Amino acid sequence: MVRVTVAGGSGYIGGELIRLLLGHPRARIAAVTSARLVGRRVDEAHPNLRGLTELRFTDPADLGDPDVLLLAGPHRQTMSVMPGLLGQARHVIDLSGDFRLRDPAVYARYYGVAHTAPELLGSFVTGLPELHREQIRCADRIAVPGCMATAAILTLAPLAGLLRGPVQVDARCGSSGAGAIASPANLHAERSGALRVFAPVSHRHEAEIAQATGLAVRMSATGVEAVRGVQVLCRARLADGAGEPAIRAAYRSAYHDEPFVRIVAHHRGTYRYPEPKILLGSNFCDVGFALDQPAAQATVIAALDNLVKGGAGNAVQCLNIRLGWPERLGLEFPGLHPA
Amino acid sequence: MVRVTVAGGSGYIGGELIRLLLGHPRARIAAVTSARLVGRRVDEAHPNLRGLTELRFTDPADLGDPDVLLLAGPHRQTMSVMPGLLGQARHVIDLSGDFRLRDPAVYARYYGVAHTAPELLGSFVTGLPELHREQIRCADRIAVPGCMATAAILTLAPLAGLLRGPVQVDARCGSSGAGAIASPANLHAERSGALRVFAPVSHRHEAEIAQATGLAVRMSATGVEAVRGVQVLCRARLADGAGEPAIRAAYRSAYHDEPFVRIVAHHRGTYRYPEPKILLGSNFCDVGFALDQPAAQATVIAALDNLVKGGAGNAVQCLNIRLGWPERLGLEFPGLHPA
Amino acid sequence: MVRVTVAGGSGYIGGELIRLLLGHPRARIAAVTSARLVGRRVDEAHPNLRGLTELRFTDPADLGDPDVLLLAGPHRQTMSVMPGLLGQARHVIDLSGDFRLRDPAVYARYYGVAHTAPELLGSFVTGLPELHREQIRCADRIAVPGCMATAAILTLAPLAGLLRGPVQVDARCGSSGAGAIASPANLHAERSGALRVFAPVSHRHEAEIAQATGLAVRMSATGVEAVRGVQVLCRARLADGAGEPAIRAAYRSAYHDEPFVRIVAHHRGTYRYPEPKILLGSNFCDVGFALDQPAAQATVIAALDNLVKGGAGNAVQCLNIRLGWPERLGLEFPGLHPA
Amino acid sequence: MVRVTVAGGSGYIGGELIRLLLGHPRARIAAVTSARLVGRRVDEAHPNLRGLTELRFTDPADLGDPDVLLLAGPHRQTMSVMPGLLGQARHVIDLSGDFRLRDPAVYARYYGVAHTAPELLGSFVTGLPELHREQIRCADRIAVPGCMATAAILTLAPLAGLLRGPVQVDARCGSSGAGAIASPANLHAERSGALRVFAPVSHRHEAEIAQATGLAVRMSATGVEAVRGVQVLCRARLADGAGEPAIRAAYRSAYHDEPFVRIVAHHRGTYRYPEPKILLGSNFCDVGFALDQPAAQATVIAALDNLVKGGAGNAVQCLNIRLGWPERLGLEFPGLHPA
Repeated sequence: MVRVTVAGGSGYIGGELIRLLLGHPRARIAAVTSARLVGRRVDEAHPNLRGLTELRFTDPADLGDPDVLLLAGPHRQTMSVMPGLLGQARHVIDLSGDFRLRDPAVYARYYGVAHTAPELLGSFVTGLPELHREQIRCADRIAVPGCMATAAILTLAPLAGLLRGPVQVDARCGSSGAGAIASPANLHAERSGALRVFAPVSHRHEAEIAQATGLAVRMSATGVEAVRGVQVLCRARLADGAGEPAIRAAYRSAYHDEPFVRIVAHHRGTYRYPEPKILLGSNFCDVGFALDQPAAQATVIAALDNLVKGGAGNAVQCLNIRLGWPERLGLEFPGLHPA
Repeated sequence: MVRVTVAGGSGYIGGELIRLLLGHPRARIAAVTSARLVGRRVDEAHPNLRGLTELRFTDPADLGDPDVLLLAGPHRQTMSVMPGLLGQARHVIDLSGDFRLRDPAVYARYYGVAHTAPELLGSFVTGLPELHREQIRCADRIAVPGCMATAAILTLAPLAGLLRGPVQVDARCGSSGAGAIASPANLHAERSGALRVFAPVSHRHEAEIAQATGLAVRMSATGVEAVRGVQVLCRARLADGAGEPAIRAAYRSAYHDEPFVRIVAHHRGTYRYPEPKILLGSNFCDVGFALDQPAAQATVIAALDNLVKGGAGNAVQCLNIRLGWPERLGLEFPGLHPA
Repeated sequence: MVRVTVAGGSGYIGGELIRLLLGHPRARIAAVTSARLVGRRVDEAHPNLRGLTELRFTDPADLGDPDVLLLAGPHRQTMSVMPGLLGQARHVIDLSGDFRLRDPAVYARYYGVAHTAPELLGSFVTGLPELHREQIRCADRIAVPGCMATAAILTLAPLAGLLRGPVQVDARCGSSGAGAIASPANLHAERSGALRVFAPVSHRHEAEIAQATGLAVRMSATGVEAVRGVQVLCRARLADGAGEPAIRAAYRSAYHDEPFVRIVAHHRGTYRYPEPKILLGSNFCDVGFALDQPAAQATVIAALDNLVKGGAGNAVQCLNIRLGWPERLGLEFPGLHPA
Repeated sequence: MVRVTVAGGSGYIGGELIRLLLGHPRARIAAVTSARLVGRRVDEAHPNLRGLTELRFTDPADLGDPDVLLLAGPHRQTMSVMPGLLGQARHVIDLSGDFRLRDPAVYARYYGVAHTAPELLGSFVTGLPELHREQIRCADRIAVPGCMATAAILTLAPLAGLLRGPVQVDARCGSSGAGAIASPANLHAERSGALRVFAPVSHRHEAEIAQATGLAVRMSATGVEAVRGVQVLCRARLADGAGEPAIRAAYRSAYHDEPFVRIVAHHRGTYRYPEPKILLGSNFCDVGFALDQPAAQATVIAALDNLVKGGAGNAVQCLNIRLGWPERLGLEFPGLHPA
């Protein structure tokens, strides 16, 4: 059994990491840290895990000598603790936003602060198996991309030669994306039923999408009534000659053997385009598209569970790859219908 | 125009008072106080009122010389400011829980602290027009009952001779009942879709119901997925000889001329029992019932909007009565279907 | 009192027309027709109206000799009954899609059938007071625009000189937009929590928006978790020299005196952009915008209640204008917060 | 591998059976029948299963020679086909209501029709492992109890000696309980946010609870805003001397070794009582309680996922027991938080 520690395990991504690891046949949780909840039972913060674990949160300094360290801490703070953590485990997988971007100037523009460990940026591999599987196989520092970025990249990347930028990305996401910290804006009475345009332009994930796809990207984000789930609609011009056959072929070629990407572009049916509602708890990313051929415009669509394929599940998939395990291990749950 | 001040106007009940007063043809808002938001625009806290008012929150000491003072402050704090406020306006209507109960010992039991102004308790009239209209006509101190209590009292009171206690009251309420203050438990991701049994026994409102009906009452409360709305199911034994005709007659007799109580007890239809979903924004309380005649048991049911008939609307109805105005004034909105 | 008949009154738009007319001080309902529910109480279909009306549905042929006829029937059927109805009332206001488009070829393209009364298309005035108030004052045939079209037109029209097409319109709408007829796709278990991309390209309302604004329009639509509410995000390039001052000035100039359009474009706050959640039951359309100045791109945003400003309320506003009444009459409800 | 057929696989319970069987290491699906969808892909009806199966629905007569036959057909119809099905597989597990009750007179009273195969009633074992594990080990005919009944029985049964009847059971359930067939009452716009008291007295499951516990039972049921989930609150008098220690001891004794029952009765915390929200997709039934000792009254509470522990998961658990497999096999998913 490989020993895995979750650092910053009191939040929603942390909870999902713990859930997935508890069900993983080759991993054993060495420690779960939380500065705020030291000594408290893990299932107090994550009540779905009752009966599955007797773990208690440990101090952030008490990592339990892990083989793998999964970091689920907040943006802007992770970069300051990273230098001290890198020696604590052979494999470090970070789920914060701090080591996703290669260019510290871009980081500063999107996160509003200078990066404090820019010399480390180049040492992280992007934790997106569909694009970087071979690098992940031998990477000891992995940065898992953002939830909305993952959805957009997976639906855009195979079409790089078929689309012309700029791409307009409209993302919708559920309330768990804002984390487990109470704030007036995320009170149920305020957030319930909302269509909250919290970033009409320049959402932070556009930098990740541009970095991954090489396309110019403009991104908006709206909070919708759901706890989990991300859906992105991306619009771009079709390259000359690009049409449905080329797009289907590109997706098929890219994702034919992928365990967690499904092509969803049917001509009829209630679920003919990617729908996050049926992905709760699953590690799938569904991708689809629709064309306005007269206008030479493509709309590509993706959906995923922001806490799983958009975070914890993707991290576990990277872990499986890195350790040479079957890639689906611990990630078999397919989602529910209806839910 | 009568000058009305809302003290403690930043919360949800306060917002509804302001909305109703802005639409009221005979009232003018003299001031809206908030210790937290002094100087800020009222429509910052209550965005639905944009374009309808230029009001700004004033300091709690700056009441604007009102004829009527509506208090929408929190339980336990209102009793300490009440003595100083009573001289500030001819009519005082309190929406907190502090002046609803007649017996300071009962208050202490349900609110967990000793009442600091017990000598005032007897001077308040219960602000429930259906039971106390004549007293309200000449009352200068009115205490509006709690939202769940209002629903339960309205469905139980007419049946006093037809039911035998104890009554079991099961209340369900939406998230706005918890107020506008952020807390981890009321984060959208935690509260959404919940069936949260927050008081399986001994909810505080049982004391109000017992006081109003003379019945022994046991009460539970569950938070349900809705922002607004209260529904109560009350169970009691039928008195000898009581049945559907007697119950219908009792309700008809009690509520035939009531402007805001509707009897909803049909034999078919999706909305055959009281349903809060169609009462958003309205001052109606719908009451209904179902009998298990072999078991000699009655289930009586009521629904209302917790912020309107369960709070602000009921207060305005009391104001209308006290000032001799038509009782529906400013309270005409009937609710929406679907919503 | 003016006599008003609602033809096709069993659906959601019909229900809202009845609600608004019952609360209107100068209108009296002459009849409410429904082929399906002849003889049944109106409040069986619209339970929020219990206690407010004793009306029963009449046969579609029994119009009750109205001064004004409001048509809330379905698309594609209304055009075949219209010729026979035009003589039945002095004023006819249609809420279906059949008389909104001026060009029968465009109608055929978007509705999939040839128009059966193309000679009438030119005789209808578009029922959008903000653009066509003077025409509405003397129009006896009015076609109220679609809910998503209304939102998009109101946010785009004032900026005609400041934006360059094509405009990409992304609309989100609640489930009531699909009407009151049961279908597997609209079952609660399927629709709840959904982000259903039902028209990724070429939604029918794009023709209305293009007709009204003169811009090339591409439109998508997604069903979101809400019963009511429409929100549109529209993207276009900024014309040379256009920026925030010019846009604010254009909106202010267009809407300064409008009773039902509010400009919502704040720099902070949870509700800094248009949010349908606070518009339930209200006739407001909130419009706002955000600029990506480096990319010379504008995102304009609007929100409304699809059954009110997007339908029944807009029709009543037109009626008020046509009959020379105060424009807000019967439309004063401001929406709820929270809800 | 054991060959398992799902008869009546197009509904929600059928979909969950298929999901669980696809993930089960020792079962292989022999056929999924549906009269309505013969020849169509199973993942058209159950889109969460895309990529996991190439199965197509077969004719109801084409059972595929199974070892185990799982029946997910409707009440009242299953009893007429049962005699012909019993010879088709060694093990038959029925999820309809038709073979749960032992007494045909009780069946007739609650289902409104005479039982057409009363001679078979005695041959079925109740598929509730916590009460009937030993019988299930050698039963070839198993009738899985109803979702609300399962919750109530699991929380009441261990306390038989500690409670005095009658017991009042108040059940709340999500919309998937009504099945996958469209009806006006279950349209999203009507059902969303509802608190629909669809059975204020005498819900059908009370007969199952009474049969299992020996207590007199009165039951009501309310549809709440959720797709999945059942919660029951049961009230009864405490027997002399019964209190928290005795109740905790009784639960601990009954459920200490149970893989799928958790005792949830904490003194603090948002999730201190059973909450269906965290049980989506899981086979857990959480049970808890609260006492009103002065009133000698107990409130016992249970929550589960109506389609899993309240249906398909419970059936698979029975299958595991019958075939001597580890009881958790294929049922490991713990539920999500938040969701």
